[in-house]
Amino acid sequence: MRGMSVWAVDGIGEVGPGDDLVALISEALERSGDVLVDGDVLVVASKIVSKAEGRLVAAENREQAITEEARRVVASRPRADGGVTRIVETRHGFVMAAAGVDASNVPEGHVLLLPVDPDASAAALARGLRERTGVRLGVVVTDTFGRPWRSAQTDLAIGAAYVKAVDDHRGDVDAHGRELTVSVTALVDEIASAADLVKSKVGGTPVAVVRGLDVLLDEPGPGVASLVRCAESDMFRLGSDEAFEEGHAAGMRMADLLADDARETRR
Amino acid sequence: MRGMSVWAVDGIGEVGPGDDLVALISEALERSGDVLVDGDVLVVASKIVSKAEGRLVAAENREQAITEEARRVVASRPRADGGVTRIVETRHGFVMAAAGVDASNVPEGHVLLLPVDPDASAAALARGLRERTGVRLGVVVTDTFGRPWRSAQTDLAIGAAYVKAVDDHRGDVDAHGRELTVSVTALVDEIASAADLVKSKVGGTPVAVVRGLDVLLDEPGPGVASLVRCAESDMFRLGSDEAFEEGHAAGMRMADLLADDARETRR
Repeated sequence: MRGMSVWAVDGIGEVGPGDDLVALISEALERSGDVLVDGDVLVVASKIVSKAEGRLVAAENREQAITEEARRVVASRPRADGGVTRIVETRHGFVMAAAGVDASNVPEGHVLLLPVDPDASAAALARGLRERTGVRLGVVVTDTFGRPWRSAQTDLAIGAAYVKAVDDHRGDVDAHGRELTVSVTALVDEIASAADLVKSKVGGTPVAVVRGLDVLLDEPGPGVASLVRCAESDMFRLGSDEAFEEGHAAGMRMADLLADDARETRR
Repeated sequence: MRGMSVWAVDGIGEVGPGDDLVALISEALERSGDVLVDGDVLVVASKIVSKAEGRLVAAENREQAITEEARRVVASRPRADGGVTRIVETRHGFVMAAAGVDASNVPEGHVLLLPVDPDASAAALARGLRERTGVRLGVVVTDTFGRPWRSAQTDLAIGAAYVKAVDDHRGDVDAHGRELTVSVTALVDEIASAADLVKSKVGGTPVAVVRGLDVLLDEPGPGVASLVRCAESDMFRLGSDEAFEEGHAAGMRMADLLADDARETRR
């Protein structure tokens, strides 16, 4: 096929703890008259994966749940409503607002946490759907991320299986024999964004099919975990205010030490 | 149409200064047998827009060109090859590596700069194509961006016209009457990412057509400029090392001032 087509799968309905997503998705596809083919990628919102995996938990408040889900706070800022927006690193290594903890579309007094291991969730879903349909397909699990420097959010991948996470052009040269500047494409993130366009079009449907990217299908693979950059090597491992404050404290200690040294010398 | 389809337009060929992109793209579409329809969005790599607009400039070295294109340095870091990677804010307000200055696929001794006003470029292209084809279409101009916290790059929009930049759900409530957490979708960035999947599939073709997003077509609109967050209000306006250093210097000055005050008091 030329290019790709992407469409949302209607009729998934509400998902609850223990629900069989393979069955729910297969049945919705059948009702829609959709037949999956080799090379299709199924894009699934983390929300229904979390619900099926029982990640809806009772929580006094969302803030406490965020604290528990966060490995560390990257940046924070007071909001107009009196609360504090926290950008945190999750247990998975994702840096996102509120640790991906969702309080919308869940019962009062509850919050929805991200899947414990979204790559494993994607792999289980892919294997189940492959068994049921006999089709060689990939799965991408998505969530919504803000980003620095640009307002508004985009969907990115938080889990993936049987689809290449990246397209690596490192070492490729251009027509003039020079190495390409941009070298690694985050395929699964681009797939997540593409699917969001059709999922929002029909009002937040949680599942979409991407057809035409057969060349990207792969072994189960290292998944989205392979895209996570470790904090130590990241130029933005801390918010600017937080890093300034750390520097400020270190600068004051340094000046005090220098002053002590100077006094010692004078004695 | 259900969902969307996205495909790359073949046969654009090399683009040079002063070339008429409207004619080049229209002719490539005709040769491919593609007929644009109302609601189509044309996604165009900034590279050919820059080339047509004469933004290929002689440059002793890429570093000098980056310095000239940068409004300020956001973060920098030494590279293994002895150079320095600079994340800068461009004249447009985009935060990106190397100010988007491209030295690949350009003649030796030259670099390619971003379009001066990519929203205006998108608008001119859209108007030209609308006149020539009689079709109500939108245009998105794209470039490739790295991002903090995740390795690999994705395509984002740097210019847009006649297509909604964002889908704003602020104030919408969920089934339980609670306001939605995620509220503004960066549509043009998701369109850029979707198009990149098919453009890379056929080896870096610079133009793709997105069909099926008719609902997103709009007045010329404020374009991608409306997505740029001003540095002052950004939690990551400076790299962590840079912010730490600023804080460190401020902390040392503060300690010195306090020491001076203490000496004054003792006198």
